Amino acid sequence: MTEPVDPELADLYRDFGAEHLVPLWTQLSDLMPMQPTPAAQAHVWRWRTLYPLAARAGDLVPVGRGGERRAIALANPGLSGKPYATPTLWAAIQYLGAHETAPEHRHSQNAFRFVIEGEGVWTVVNGDPVAMRRGDFLLTPGWNFHGHHNDSEHPMAWIDGLDIPFVHYTDAAFFEFGTERVTDEATPPVSRSERLWAHPGLRPLSGLQDTASSPIAAYRWEHTDRALTEQLLLEDEGQPATAGQGHAAVRYVNPTTGGDVMPTIRAEFHRLRAGAATEALREVGSSVWQVFEGRGAIVMDGLRQVVEKGDLIVLPSWTSWSIEAETGFDLFRFSDAPIFERLSFSRSYAERTGP
Amino acid sequence: MTEPVDPELADLYRDFGAEHLVPLWTQLSDLMPMQPTPAAQAHVWRWRTLYPLAARAGDLVPVGRGGERRAIALANPGLSGKPYATPTLWAAIQYLGAHETAPEHRHSQNAFRFVIEGEGVWTVVNGDPVAMRRGDFLLTPGWNFHGHHNDSEHPMAWIDGLDIPFVHYTDAAFFEFGTERVTDEATPPVSRSERLWAHPGLRPLSGLQDTASSPIAAYRWEHTDRALTEQLLLEDEGQPATAGQGHAAVRYVNPTTGGDVMPTIRAEFHRLRAGAATEALREVGSSVWQVFEGRGAIVMDGLRQVVEKGDLIVLPSWTSWSIEAETGFDLFRFSDAPIFERLSFSRSYAERTGP
Amino acid sequence: MTEPVDPELADLYRDFGAEHLVPLWTQLSDLMPMQPTPAAQAHVWRWRTLYPLAARAGDLVPVGRGGERRAIALANPGLSGKPYATPTLWAAIQYLGAHETAPEHRHSQNAFRFVIEGEGVWTVVNGDPVAMRRGDFLLTPGWNFHGHHNDSEHPMAWIDGLDIPFVHYTDAAFFEFGTERVTDEATPPVSRSERLWAHPGLRPLSGLQDTASSPIAAYRWEHTDRALTEQLLLEDEGQPATAGQGHAAVRYVNPTTGGDVMPTIRAEFHRLRAGAATEALREVGSSVWQVFEGRGAIVMDGLRQVVEKGDLIVLPSWTSWSIEAETGFDLFRFSDAPIFERLSFSRSYAERTGP
Amino acid sequence: MTEPVDPELADLYRDFGAEHLVPLWTQLSDLMPMQPTPAAQAHVWRWRTLYPLAARAGDLVPVGRGGERRAIALANPGLSGKPYATPTLWAAIQYLGAHETAPEHRHSQNAFRFVIEGEGVWTVVNGDPVAMRRGDFLLTPGWNFHGHHNDSEHPMAWIDGLDIPFVHYTDAAFFEFGTERVTDEATPPVSRSERLWAHPGLRPLSGLQDTASSPIAAYRWEHTDRALTEQLLLEDEGQPATAGQGHAAVRYVNPTTGGDVMPTIRAEFHRLRAGAATEALREVGSSVWQVFEGRGAIVMDGLRQVVEKGDLIVLPSWTSWSIEAETGFDLFRFSDAPIFERLSFSRSYAERTGP
Repeated sequence: MTEPVDPELADLYRDFGAEHLVPLWTQLSDLMPMQPTPAAQAHVWRWRTLYPLAARAGDLVPVGRGGERRAIALANPGLSGKPYATPTLWAAIQYLGAHETAPEHRHSQNAFRFVIEGEGVWTVVNGDPVAMRRGDFLLTPGWNFHGHHNDSEHPMAWIDGLDIPFVHYTDAAFFEFGTERVTDEATPPVSRSERLWAHPGLRPLSGLQDTASSPIAAYRWEHTDRALTEQLLLEDEGQPATAGQGHAAVRYVNPTTGGDVMPTIRAEFHRLRAGAATEALREVGSSVWQVFEGRGAIVMDGLRQVVEKGDLIVLPSWTSWSIEAETGFDLFRFSDAPIFERLSFSRSYAERTGP
Repeated sequence: MTEPVDPELADLYRDFGAEHLVPLWTQLSDLMPMQPTPAAQAHVWRWRTLYPLAARAGDLVPVGRGGERRAIALANPGLSGKPYATPTLWAAIQYLGAHETAPEHRHSQNAFRFVIEGEGVWTVVNGDPVAMRRGDFLLTPGWNFHGHHNDSEHPMAWIDGLDIPFVHYTDAAFFEFGTERVTDEATPPVSRSERLWAHPGLRPLSGLQDTASSPIAAYRWEHTDRALTEQLLLEDEGQPATAGQGHAAVRYVNPTTGGDVMPTIRAEFHRLRAGAATEALREVGSSVWQVFEGRGAIVMDGLRQVVEKGDLIVLPSWTSWSIEAETGFDLFRFSDAPIFERLSFSRSYAERTGP
Repeated sequence: MTEPVDPELADLYRDFGAEHLVPLWTQLSDLMPMQPTPAAQAHVWRWRTLYPLAARAGDLVPVGRGGERRAIALANPGLSGKPYATPTLWAAIQYLGAHETAPEHRHSQNAFRFVIEGEGVWTVVNGDPVAMRRGDFLLTPGWNFHGHHNDSEHPMAWIDGLDIPFVHYTDAAFFEFGTERVTDEATPPVSRSERLWAHPGLRPLSGLQDTASSPIAAYRWEHTDRALTEQLLLEDEGQPATAGQGHAAVRYVNPTTGGDVMPTIRAEFHRLRAGAATEALREVGSSVWQVFEGRGAIVMDGLRQVVEKGDLIVLPSWTSWSIEAETGFDLFRFSDAPIFERLSFSRSYAERTGP
Repeated sequence: MTEPVDPELADLYRDFGAEHLVPLWTQLSDLMPMQPTPAAQAHVWRWRTLYPLAARAGDLVPVGRGGERRAIALANPGLSGKPYATPTLWAAIQYLGAHETAPEHRHSQNAFRFVIEGEGVWTVVNGDPVAMRRGDFLLTPGWNFHGHHNDSEHPMAWIDGLDIPFVHYTDAAFFEFGTERVTDEATPPVSRSERLWAHPGLRPLSGLQDTASSPIAAYRWEHTDRALTEQLLLEDEGQPATAGQGHAAVRYVNPTTGGDVMPTIRAEFHRLRAGAATEALREVGSSVWQVFEGRGAIVMDGLRQVVEKGDLIVLPSWTSWSIEAETGFDLFRFSDAPIFERLSFSRSYAERTGP
């Protein structure tokens, strides 16, 4: 705020300052804009850049108690160097070398992993070893103990998504250390949580209490792929199934409620046929996309960026976005949409073009 | 009520009658008993009796518009010859000969089928052909058009469960005829509903609106069997998974809510190891069990009955029941429990014996 | 069902009977009609008839343990002499002489009282004495101990509404005797429940747990009357407020949820201006109206009946009804609508006449 | 983060920076602390300081389109001069001179007013004039047009509470200007919203759709005061009613759901008897208290501050707090608790002392 010329007003403003007071009228347009004016920027991180940097960290930085994880976070260029993809979401590449272990801990922050390539790591969630493989979406909801260990001769990298910025901003963070090694070093192909919960439309009688987060620790690629394949086949047969023309999409859900997998994070997988495109959309809330396979473009507030396997795209709130598929195009997406739905702030605006 | 001796009272009671009035004080113990005193009786129907009778009906009674279905209902011995398994539930064996068609209709009553043996029939639900095979649980929720056709050279029989008695009693029945033949005579191995919805933890973006009943038309035996198998394996590994010692159980649920498949009907599948038994339990609400495989006993208010494949057991409200498995023992169960849960009348009482 | 002429079929039907089986095809149109065909009839009971009969019972029949209540139930002419207003609802006039006590008991059935005239009785609900006065609507939700005592020199009569028929039919009845006298003979003008809960938009911090039924034991006439008066004044000012032109209406609700006062019973109060009328409506579910004040007509499936203070009108499911006010016309209504809403059977049909 | 000595690591960190990446391991303890470490501080603002500063602003700063409101916000000393009471909550004193008008606008942020003293202003919410008087709690939920006008010869000041910081941080802000003058200059004693909605346990049939925020625009002091008075009287009678010994409390709620008045803001009123005290409590989430009447102390993380009428106390997340009443002590409180409840981050810790 510029210095007022009226000396009485200058006095008043100085007295305000001394008493920890700030007038609204000098701040209004910044505080309460006509529509969201995110400091965060739409930005693309390239897998071909990210992965080698993570590998260099693998050589130079040990993983263990204290640092806890060899995770390297996307730091939105608009957010002053903070390790935040958006004001609410954390997105990082995590890298674990052959036979390394990331020790167990738990925290109130909700976390997931998504695997773009590789295998050989088990994440152990509350004592349940969960294999990580390409295309899998894995959950570590708030306050579940978890560690990772690489049982293979090769390094493995994946994407971590959390609500760290939101929880930090709202002062809701709790953290506790667990064991240095994972509590169960078994390497089963599927987790106990899947064996109990990942059966379509079936709920164990031992699990009739609804839970805030999904009890399924791993959503396997084979199921996601099949669901998307079927949607496109149904579309071919003239049946309603897809989210839009040539655009198959599923949301990962909590089977105890049918709602989002975790209270603050929505996760989805999208598949576009070659040549398909989505209509431009603005939504309250931010999101992160990762290209899983194929090649296409994302248009962000009019700016077109070609992206391919592993690339990460960050979209701040109310950014106009659309996707255009050059080839068949598979994308993982996560967002903070549940926050806005549960607090009644959801809004979207579809910019329909053409007739 | 016995005739009162006081002439003034006799006059009063006569005047009550003339005005369509009934005093509470002469009726109280019947109307408001200390605990449920069902007119319905616990009873067992034998598959070895039922099936031949259904086959005879197959020879003598045509299926078609008007009669609509060749279904033969369990008529509880306590319910005055009404075709009601319990006051709320209908259970029938339905029989469809080679190449026969049961015409399409819809009604407000909720319906399902459970297949104890055979295959070759497709039920067509709102135009979606759904194959019926041993072990499958199939839904036709209220107000969905449906018909059945037998595409094979053999007859097929299955169990129908509906809320006909409840809907009749509460005067909520609506019915509409559809086409004489099923609207889609295709015979795909899986329905479109399954291709869209039966993926564990995945929800199509085209189906984000919650529905009162499950959008999954068929719950396949392979999934049910696998879920139960895994529960017993997890129990072997010392993990919490089963409903009780040696007793695996799943509930069929609506994936949009995690709740029961239909608003009035709960459906479950239970598997007991040979030698396992459940503890005696009383519950508000009635249920029907069908033995799917194996041999064991059900104890109903102290009376023990040995049952085997296909046998149907009807349990009125507040009957004490327990199950004892001689061999590995698979049972399907449906009940009216959602009615009581949603109306806050649920109660149960476990009769624990021993230390 | 008529006797079949084919001897083989006759044999089959006889064998069905012996095995407690009934075919659907001979029963379909009765069991699953095109629309509800209630056995219950629309009927009017006159207060000028009811009250003297109740007073005669007051002279001849003692009230006390065993008979429990001097309540005389409306027995729908279509329901074979059962003391049921409709298949789900019980409605009775209860009469308590000067200084009489109706002993305490509790039951799973949900109950309320509505007072058309008089005062001097306190109903004691779980030890909380609740004064009963003209226009008050009073709750005794399931499993709350309650008794009544008349602290005055005059008899008092009121209307009881319960879900006795529904609970009886579904075998969910539990009952327990309490003390012979009411547990608190104090006669405060308002109950403790009101002092804690009946403040608009305010919830005690000691009561943050939602309850299946309303914690408010008495909804006082002064509040109901004021709410209706304001609706009509707002309508005069051109504001949206009424349920229809000249038709003010409120629903009694559970303040912990905003929903119906009890899980099975909806209660409302309606006020029509002189000359106002509602449009003809059919609804799934049955209801009972009582005229509180004024004079008008109710048209039931085309039959017009003039009704006045105290008269009770019973409407079976899917009966077309409309109300026409000759004078200013105040009516209390209760129904079983929550049963159908919670079980997804609700339907209604408005017969709009004119342009 | 300190500069790494290893040159390869230094290179890596520089390359991270160039690619907008930040490693977790150097940030972990700040980002994910053991328990909340709010930047915001517990702080007290004195009414005797605030009010004169607001009055000086009344002389020097006009109110009108552009600045919109003469509101002066509490700027938490820990939050770098931002006009935020806490990271989620805005709290300001608003001052309106005799016959001034604050023009109409609407915004996605949820707002309320609480009146510590004075009267004469009407806030007009969606065209409904709402009188503001001492002790009243007034709502302007998100996206409702609202303006204020002072119809009196005297200035008036009150407290504004909003979720501005939360909405700003999460980029969910929308704003629209309305008319320069309020759209209805009438000055009725009660609003239309109250006439329709503020009747205990009664819901208009014209308002059966649940709303995200309360439809009651004003919660009047007379109701709040009566509810608190009754709680303490009930406690005197040995009845359960208060939140703790000598501690009456009510929550303002949305009558359509029984839940909080707005999706992000909880509001309560507390009354302690002279000499009463609450036990020390930590809670996730921040809150603001204002003393309405009386004198007492608040102990914040062990620091005791004596407060009196009009003083405002700000408590960051996880601050231990307790209240001690010297005289009868009335306090208004608002918080961001619904955010944490709806997102499953709620936690609290009661530090019980003594036996």
